[in-house]
Amino acid sequence: MTATTVNDTTVTDSTANATAANATAGAGLDQRTVELDRAFVFHSWSAQGALNPLVIAGGLGSRVWDNAGRSYLDFSSQLVNVNIGHQHPAVVKAIIDEVGTLATVAPSTANLARGEAAKRIVGRAPERFNKVFFTNGGADAIENAIRMARLHTGRDKVLSTYRSYHGNTGSAIVATGDWRRIPNEFARGHVHFFGPYLYRSEFWATSPEQECERALRHLERMIQSEGPTSIAAVLIESIPGTAGVLVPPPGYLAGVRALCDRYGILLILDEVMAGFGRTGRWFAFEGYDVVPDLITFAKGVNSGYVPTGGVIISDSIAHTFDTSVFPGGLTYSGHPLAMASIVAALDAMEDEGIVENAARIGRDVLAPGLAELQAKHPVIGEVRGEGVFWALELVADRETREPLNGAVMGRIKAELLGRGLLPFLADNRIHVVPPCVVTDDEVAEALAVYDEVLGLDLLN
Amino acid sequence: MTATTVNDTTVTDSTANATAANATAGAGLDQRTVELDRAFVFHSWSAQGALNPLVIAGGLGSRVWDNAGRSYLDFSSQLVNVNIGHQHPAVVKAIIDEVGTLATVAPSTANLARGEAAKRIVGRAPERFNKVFFTNGGADAIENAIRMARLHTGRDKVLSTYRSYHGNTGSAIVATGDWRRIPNEFARGHVHFFGPYLYRSEFWATSPEQECERALRHLERMIQSEGPTSIAAVLIESIPGTAGVLVPPPGYLAGVRALCDRYGILLILDEVMAGFGRTGRWFAFEGYDVVPDLITFAKGVNSGYVPTGGVIISDSIAHTFDTSVFPGGLTYSGHPLAMASIVAALDAMEDEGIVENAARIGRDVLAPGLAELQAKHPVIGEVRGEGVFWALELVADRETREPLNGAVMGRIKAELLGRGLLPFLADNRIHVVPPCVVTDDEVAEALAVYDEVLGLDLLN
Ligand SMILES: Cc1ncc(COP(=O)(O)O)c(C=O)c1O
Ligand SMILES: Cc1ncc(COP(=O)(O)O)c(C=O)c1O
Repeated sequence: MTATTVNDTTVTDSTANATAANATAGAGLDQRTVELDRAFVFHSWSAQGALNPLVIAGGLGSRVWDNAGRSYLDFSSQLVNVNIGHQHPAVVKAIIDEVGTLATVAPSTANLARGEAAKRIVGRAPERFNKVFFTNGGADAIENAIRMARLHTGRDKVLSTYRSYHGNTGSAIVATGDWRRIPNEFARGHVHFFGPYLYRSEFWATSPEQECERALRHLERMIQSEGPTSIAAVLIESIPGTAGVLVPPPGYLAGVRALCDRYGILLILDEVMAGFGRTGRWFAFEGYDVVPDLITFAKGVNSGYVPTGGVIISDSIAHTFDTSVFPGGLTYSGHPLAMASIVAALDAMEDEGIVENAARIGRDVLAPGLAELQAKHPVIGEVRGEGVFWALELVADRETREPLNGAVMGRIKAELLGRGLLPFLADNRIHVVPPCVVTDDEVAEALAVYDEVLGLDLLN
Repeated sequence: MTATTVNDTTVTDSTANATAANATAGAGLDQRTVELDRAFVFHSWSAQGALNPLVIAGGLGSRVWDNAGRSYLDFSSQLVNVNIGHQHPAVVKAIIDEVGTLATVAPSTANLARGEAAKRIVGRAPERFNKVFFTNGGADAIENAIRMARLHTGRDKVLSTYRSYHGNTGSAIVATGDWRRIPNEFARGHVHFFGPYLYRSEFWATSPEQECERALRHLERMIQSEGPTSIAAVLIESIPGTAGVLVPPPGYLAGVRALCDRYGILLILDEVMAGFGRTGRWFAFEGYDVVPDLITFAKGVNSGYVPTGGVIISDSIAHTFDTSVFPGGLTYSGHPLAMASIVAALDAMEDEGIVENAARIGRDVLAPGLAELQAKHPVIGEVRGEGVFWALELVADRETREPLNGAVMGRIKAELLGRGLLPFLADNRIHVVPPCVVTDDEVAEALAVYDEVLGLDLLN
């Protein structure tokens, strides 16, 4: 089954027959795919007993499909990583070219694609950033940023927020604030604080200004109470993603920067999910009047076509390791296929105005469209976001803001899938996170599906 | 510059001119590669100031080359990962096919290549192993194996050896025994013990039997002293690799298994470097009369063509997570390109008898050849290994076994490189670790280079 077949809308009779035969064969393949999966594959973040995974066999742009001919608008971007859309030809070609030249090479060598990728990443970062350390994904990016911060400062503690996710490895999972931390807490020196989240304020705030001011005051009290000289870094997602696209109130990030400066603490901004186009900017923190000391990235940098991630390092931290050994590394740091895909993805995003598209879609299409949905459906308690990075907070009651329960969310997921929309759901939220290349028509199509499903009699 | 050009030995005059022009262009490209690297790339495990990385621009089988026409026999397999050799056409093709179909997909979906990869891995594992959890590399494989062990047993501690390397993330780096652990010790519950290493025995042993018996007695005393009911797992490399290819004495691994059984502790065997052909067997632990509870892998499973790794899970541990949630995961778990490359690599290794080749080369060519070197060169204190997994322990004095110092090792490295051999050096050792596809002629060529260099007046 190819993209063309799936996207065909007009089919002749004979094509229809062929398509029917294909669909039967495809259904068999889907069944085999699920059988092999259930027999041999162990899945993340789940009990393995009752899984019923969706088959995705192909994709193009904002659409994916199985072998039997069912297709879906991908408003999840998988795990919010396919920023450039599925099967972008330039990125596919770059990987094909590189794999034909040199599929793998040790990190200690010099590799052209790696240098070109690092140059492009640095070129988009703030001025004092000139070095990139590459990893395989987001978690090990955080691990290495934390390592750099601890060694640069000679201090242990890392402060991060409860509403956060930073990855599943030893330090990253303990830096994480959400439930995934609790069963994994084997690392020392991780302290959690509350970030701003006006809709469910931890600070009894009633306006963005108040939420910002009180969240900063809380962070300062945490720093003072933990002891500033014991703290290596404050680690935050520029816009906490999995936790609910918690766009910070104006002034918050700049305020955190000021606190870090006052107490001599480094600021690590985790841009793994928010970075490389998702917000309609190259980095989410741009426009918040803040420059961090370390930036972690993954996902959008190459849309996950090959596993990769990394840390962008500001000069003063980089210089620490000019003469002293950096004690971190991994076999596939700066892997040539990943590097080639970064070069192609960033060039294509630039040439095709893909980040600008995300900004425009966010401003002109999603913002008004989602506001309209909220006006129509009382189940939507709040709409937050920018670019192609949005969350609908679903509530059983707008007054009490009681989150919609898991059973109802499960039903919503099934209804969306049934209407050809692959959603991203987290807790009581729908995250509206299509690729940055999403078109006006595709957004209209998706909005209609959300509209229909949220109009169902969900609560009974 | 292509493989054919590099491997040409007879060139006509006009070809020679063309080649000279290519070489000049190539030298420019190499220079640009190094300049970009030095400007923008932050390297693992090093001080950044004085690096002078080698350019590797292409490869085929056991050979790699730069753009200027210098070629090297790769007796490092990069980071001991290119088991199938460089640019194996079936693996390259599988990646090209998969990237043209679906470059990336979320782990929660069912994916055919992933099921096929898991099936093949499980098919080579011992009987009670039926599930695979995929990661991006070795470190996160260890992270997740440790997580499973801790949650399955409800215990914290992990015992691992001082002479070991398990990866650079939070738990993996603290499980690691070597120096790379010390600046990174932020996780609780990691305890280290001494493994067997007769050449530098920690137990005053003088025979393999005695080393085995005393190493087991030491481990048992460690278990008793730490408290058996606090220990989740013993984690060991089946054959410690980076630490020096420390082939365990007969009976050691079976003895560790018996201790684990006696005290109700899980056994994790780290096969990241030793697995998938390196020893001339699919798993290094085969033939040692031991079955672990969890097996970690990476590197050889797909020769690193795409970053990947994972945990092979025995049934009783897998069943723990049938009903309770497994709290681990990563965006690129079971990445389609990695999965397709595993399927192709394992099939090709099977079809082409690549593991058997590694066994034969080890037994018939490297074992006698390296023994001959040792007989000739007093600087070789010990030769250890099997398959294509060997170490030459270099000493300043055979009596005192004083390790050769770093400066001399640096000179050895330069001399080997200068003669077209890309070596793997660690501390005072040369690890002889070519791809599993290495030919008799290539081994002969390499042995001649080692012979020549070790015959230089190194110590003055
Ligand atoms: C903000 C953030 N940081 C880190 C990570 C971890 O990335 P990975 O799953 O590639 O390890 C994620 C993954 O969702 C993330 O959203
Ligand atoms: C035995 C062993 N375990 C784990 C690792 C870590 O693997 P990675 O570098 O892919 O994280 C290595 C790497 O050399 C290794 O040799």
